[in-house]
Amino acid sequence: MTEQFDAVDVIRAKRDGIALSQGQIDWVLDAYTRGAVADYQMSALAMAIFLKGMSRAEIAAWTRAMIASGERMDFSGLSRPTADKHSTGGVGDKITLPLAPLVACFGVAVPQLSGRGLGHTGGTLDKLESIPGWRAALSNDEMLAQLDDVGAVICAAGSGLAPADRKLYSLRDVTGTVESIPLIASSIMSKKIAEGTGALVLDVKVGSGAFMKSLGDARELARTMVDLGRDAGVHTVALLTDMSVPLGLTAGNALEVAESVEVLSGGGPADVVELTVALAVEMLAGAGKPASPDDVRAALTDGRAMDAWRRMIAAQGGDPDAPLPVAQETETVTADADGVLTRLDAYAVGIAAWRLGAGRARKEDPVQAAAGVRLHAKPGDRVMAGQPLLTLHTDTPDRFTRAGQSLEGAWEVAPEGTPEAIAATTPGKLILDRIA
Amino acid sequence: MTEQFDAVDVIRAKRDGIALSQGQIDWVLDAYTRGAVADYQMSALAMAIFLKGMSRAEIAAWTRAMIASGERMDFSGLSRPTADKHSTGGVGDKITLPLAPLVACFGVAVPQLSGRGLGHTGGTLDKLESIPGWRAALSNDEMLAQLDDVGAVICAAGSGLAPADRKLYSLRDVTGTVESIPLIASSIMSKKIAEGTGALVLDVKVGSGAFMKSLGDARELARTMVDLGRDAGVHTVALLTDMSVPLGLTAGNALEVAESVEVLSGGGPADVVELTVALAVEMLAGAGKPASPDDVRAALTDGRAMDAWRRMIAAQGGDPDAPLPVAQETETVTADADGVLTRLDAYAVGIAAWRLGAGRARKEDPVQAAAGVRLHAKPGDRVMAGQPLLTLHTDTPDRFTRAGQSLEGAWEVAPEGTPEAIAATTPGKLILDRIA
Repeated sequence: MTEQFDAVDVIRAKRDGIALSQGQIDWVLDAYTRGAVADYQMSALAMAIFLKGMSRAEIAAWTRAMIASGERMDFSGLSRPTADKHSTGGVGDKITLPLAPLVACFGVAVPQLSGRGLGHTGGTLDKLESIPGWRAALSNDEMLAQLDDVGAVICAAGSGLAPADRKLYSLRDVTGTVESIPLIASSIMSKKIAEGTGALVLDVKVGSGAFMKSLGDARELARTMVDLGRDAGVHTVALLTDMSVPLGLTAGNALEVAESVEVLSGGGPADVVELTVALAVEMLAGAGKPASPDDVRAALTDGRAMDAWRRMIAAQGGDPDAPLPVAQETETVTADADGVLTRLDAYAVGIAAWRLGAGRARKEDPVQAAAGVRLHAKPGDRVMAGQPLLTLHTDTPDRFTRAGQSLEGAWEVAPEGTPEAIAATTPGKLILDRIA
Repeated sequence: MTEQFDAVDVIRAKRDGIALSQGQIDWVLDAYTRGAVADYQMSALAMAIFLKGMSRAEIAAWTRAMIASGERMDFSGLSRPTADKHSTGGVGDKITLPLAPLVACFGVAVPQLSGRGLGHTGGTLDKLESIPGWRAALSNDEMLAQLDDVGAVICAAGSGLAPADRKLYSLRDVTGTVESIPLIASSIMSKKIAEGTGALVLDVKVGSGAFMKSLGDARELARTMVDLGRDAGVHTVALLTDMSVPLGLTAGNALEVAESVEVLSGGGPADVVELTVALAVEMLAGAGKPASPDDVRAALTDGRAMDAWRRMIAAQGGDPDAPLPVAQETETVTADADGVLTRLDAYAVGIAAWRLGAGRARKEDPVQAAAGVRLHAKPGDRVMAGQPLLTLHTDTPDRFTRAGQSLEGAWEVAPEGTPEAIAATTPGKLILDRIA
């Protein structure tokens, strides 16, 4: 590619609210990947994009350029259609774990390239790595073989997919340019399109525990991503789902694996089951193998999904029967009054789990497999003074203090019969909207 | 200083339009100077400041923190008061050269710390370096001795003054964050306040050849800087002056020295004399030694200013009698019709001089002492077809083509008697406003 552009001109144009051309975008992302545009120039451009936005055409061009910065995978040789799911990240969001083997039961291959966690939302790979022996790194050939054999794979995305995004993502994290809809949408979709899935279901989280705090922002992000997917020939649907309360009753790596196994055994918390089934229905429809919610639920209760899970874990070296790590220390948070739990803030629980050791502050930090938070009540539940609300798990008890601080003011109990208590016992919707 | 802040939090606050505290600003500029805040973080912050602005209190805090990043000079031991001048940069702006010795004639010391040029506006040190033997670098002791003896010094600013500004200024240049009033004002004023002058006159340029293209922006910049100076105890006044046409009849290093010597001999172009006198009157008033414009003009015509110039140049190793470098090649641009020159664009002339070799594209580039542009007519002058309008000077004739290109469409001749011609012959004001 000829160097026909200048980094400062591109930055100044976006700064002044002028739409960038495909040529400018191709050049700047290629030059950034090669190192010819410096980090300090890209961070200024990212801030200008954050504050001035990008048009639909610019976002599409930006996404294409990020895809073009690396390799693309190709699953067209598989005997079955492919479907993938991406969540924008929430607290207690272990849905990928039961979902991938569940969908595989219906003859659809699930090539789930996942990441590790950074900040208060956990990472799918971190969760699975709490299973003794399981390994996240697969070659492309191993991945294809497992998709043909088991029908589901959850593994680390190779560094060859959208390297521009990889570099930009790390930079955004340290320059205050994360929460930009154009940058989030192009980051997610460039990886998912490069991955080569035929159908894609997006779980766009809304609420305190999500990056998108408002329904309006979440809807705009979902619309942007669905358009990008469709324009690239990927059958894409988004569900907007509530993330004001943690999903299920656990946040933390091994704790969430255990809860996923409960779901695969036909049990588990109702919200986790509901969302798993809803996403499976969308993935199957998108892949051209429609199934009803009842059909899907049956695969959870009759052991088919569990069989697929065991084969998927074993194929990547994991022992599905091995006991999961257990934290060396626990501490209990109890209710301070009789009444109804009216609020339990997802973000606060996410931060607590992170501080207990379930997450990492920097990319190179290790995580504790057993650390996290177990919930004993959810909003709407009746509680009694002294009853356990949360159990905190960690191997390093000096972390209890800071974890506990993050939970101060994060939950409320109201006397029964009060308007707050009555409102809390009316179940809110988990799935808020669908964007297709 | 304790590291009580986090770079990402500071960036996010400014990005979201929240005013930064003195503590945040002190921390971020100190950490940046030390290297604990990275260039890519500071450039994101600079872009957020560019797009979200800073309050008067923030600009004052930012300026104080930049001053605190380095040493401060102290002229209180001198037997005379001090006054300095700063120009925001224009084409053909050689005013510092006659101004410093002129003011020194009236018992006021002028400690003029100057820079080299970058881009289309020339640098005072580059101009003086065309005088054989003259050197820009002085120690603090040499500077003080020369101020006591001659009363005027023009030399390079030491690296100890406002090092945070030095680092940030280079970064802004390559990240599209130059034209921000808070950043320009704090950059200029931190250096001038650290320099320790008692009085300061700002020459804020307005028009095509200046950074500020509109009077409104120039007025806001002037107001911001005057407030900063006053708050720091420096007697500060700003003149807003026209920079739509080059100042005087020369742009280029040795060419401008020669023109300055004409002014010091009691001649020279009227606009250069007018501005030199106006700025001298302001500096003398600011330093508590008021003089009338006529008194000041007298010092130009009776040889006193020339004597001070010769002593100032000689004190820094220069030979005031040595012939100045002459370009090896010249090329003439001629008028294409009879009439009145109605326009001669300052920016285009600045770019032409720069391309001929008078300026540099990168900090480490050398400049040609003899390169530049000589004007033979100014807007309002009557011209005849074929008459020389401009002479281009360079030692490297392959530069004529690109220099000529920058002058295409940069001037216009209208037939006498047309409204444009009549308007052009009505002299415009050079000094547009005064902010005190």
